[in-house]
Amino acid sequence: MSERIRFRLDIAYDGTGFAGWAKQPGHRTVQGVLEEAVALLSSGVGRSPVITVAGRTDAGVHAVGQVAHVDLDEQVVAGFTARGRAADAVLLRRLNGILGPLSDVVITDVAVAPEGFDARFSATWRRYEYRIADNLSFHDPLQRHRTRLLRSTLDVDQLELAARSLLGLRDFAAFCKPRPGASTIRELQQFTWVRDASGVLVATLQADAFCHSMVRSLVGGCVGVGEGRLTLDGLADLLRADRRGGRFAVQPAHGLTLLAVGYPGDALLAARAQETRAIRTAAQIDETEGSASGTPDGLAEESAAR
Amino acid sequence: MSERIRFRLDIAYDGTGFAGWAKQPGHRTVQGVLEEAVALLSSGVGRSPVITVAGRTDAGVHAVGQVAHVDLDEQVVAGFTARGRAADAVLLRRLNGILGPLSDVVITDVAVAPEGFDARFSATWRRYEYRIADNLSFHDPLQRHRTRLLRSTLDVDQLELAARSLLGLRDFAAFCKPRPGASTIRELQQFTWVRDASGVLVATLQADAFCHSMVRSLVGGCVGVGEGRLTLDGLADLLRADRRGGRFAVQPAHGLTLLAVGYPGDALLAARAQETRAIRTAAQIDETEGSASGTPDGLAEESAAR
Repeated sequence: MSERIRFRLDIAYDGTGFAGWAKQPGHRTVQGVLEEAVALLSSGVGRSPVITVAGRTDAGVHAVGQVAHVDLDEQVVAGFTARGRAADAVLLRRLNGILGPLSDVVITDVAVAPEGFDARFSATWRRYEYRIADNLSFHDPLQRHRTRLLRSTLDVDQLELAARSLLGLRDFAAFCKPRPGASTIRELQQFTWVRDASGVLVATLQADAFCHSMVRSLVGGCVGVGEGRLTLDGLADLLRADRRGGRFAVQPAHGLTLLAVGYPGDALLAARAQETRAIRTAAQIDETEGSASGTPDGLAEESAAR
Repeated sequence: MSERIRFRLDIAYDGTGFAGWAKQPGHRTVQGVLEEAVALLSSGVGRSPVITVAGRTDAGVHAVGQVAHVDLDEQVVAGFTARGRAADAVLLRRLNGILGPLSDVVITDVAVAPEGFDARFSATWRRYEYRIADNLSFHDPLQRHRTRLLRSTLDVDQLELAARSLLGLRDFAAFCKPRPGASTIRELQQFTWVRDASGVLVATLQADAFCHSMVRSLVGGCVGVGEGRLTLDGLADLLRADRRGGRFAVQPAHGLTLLAVGYPGDALLAARAQETRAIRTAAQIDETEGSASGTPDGLAEESAAR
């Protein structure tokens, strides 16, 4: 059996035309499109490529800083470097060539992965953005596919207070789509709100990992406070609940974009992956940020267990 | 005959799904969609609404700050204000209601027009933006419909020098799609290039008016210099030519966005409109910024003469 070489892929996509990241029979997914492109490059040599991702985004969710890895047979990689060029530069150019110039998914960088790198298990944090245009925002049709339109006026100070009250290492059961046996303990490291130059409300959230539909639930909780329908005390009560209730609206997927994924220094990659894998296996932690609708239930878990 | 009341409409659109601004039988155009929406509101009362615009953008060109006007019969407007609400606020809300929440064209503001206001003839300047992603840019798929992708590396200092050399009141025949008898004298008041935070090259151009495909030709001339295929001297020679040559590539429409239209103070609106109308009639100046393809030739001129 030949050796395999691991590549890190940095990926951006417009989620509008995808049924999410995870491969699903009969649906166009980011994973499906990318695995097909990689398979074209390795044309029959070695096993079918499997791409492993840091954040398995759901239908309609976008990414500008998604990270994944793929293992390619030495023999395939040798073909790339035949003319003395770097394998990662060739892979970058060829993959984008296959995807095409106006593609809704773009490989933004390729690098031979450092020893011990695992896109999913080595990651130490994920950062998302959620965009809302309310009555005070400029409604830019060019940004409509990544901006939630809300026919009300939100108080950004209240949003900010609500966000701050949610920070920390907590059980986020009240903000997660329940999965039997799965832990809902996460560390929410950052959660801020600003109005940008065009008046659009932009939330930035960072956590070690997010459970299913957690970002859109946290945003929903803040929107409740920002609209004055929920008090900060009410939000605090929610945090103590052990399941998701009906006191806020989980926000739609199209306002959500995965901004970036963080990794430790190269020396710590393998240790981090081992540690995460052990915790995830024990607690069935699932870092999918997905929507209730759009993805058949259980599929995300299935791919998490792979 | 009843009186008519003139409204100023501020409009934004994603040009991707439109065959440009100007109404054309059998094509989906911004003017066509908006006139239909206004007609729905006035349902049979008075004449069919005609919307007059400041910048008749061509197929694929976007706008965030387009300005237009429409005249509505008093009787129709009286219906809006029946419950004591302001007619412009009602018109804004109803039009966007008809267009729908995820529409590719949005009315961003409505106001009763000041005396003498004509969206086209009162305008003193138009400002456009052109976006190019080159090899040094982040290729964001979420912005692909408004960003030209170029597989080369542009020198922003050269772009800036080229742009500066084109400023002023000149005959831009070398950068205009020729129209028999039409003047090509324009005042290019602003033309700058910057790399934004994501490395995308953004040109901003302002002129009293632009002739047909002028922005995309000027950008093409700069790109030639930025790529090193054309010298600044070569560009200066072009400026002296009396017709468009083949020494630069007219850039595609989808990188272009109409940013804003300028008007004088209310007291000068009517005078400005009269003055422009006189000049345009004499010289057949046509401010369309359009593409050669997509719009049947002569149509823009036809609507200019209306």
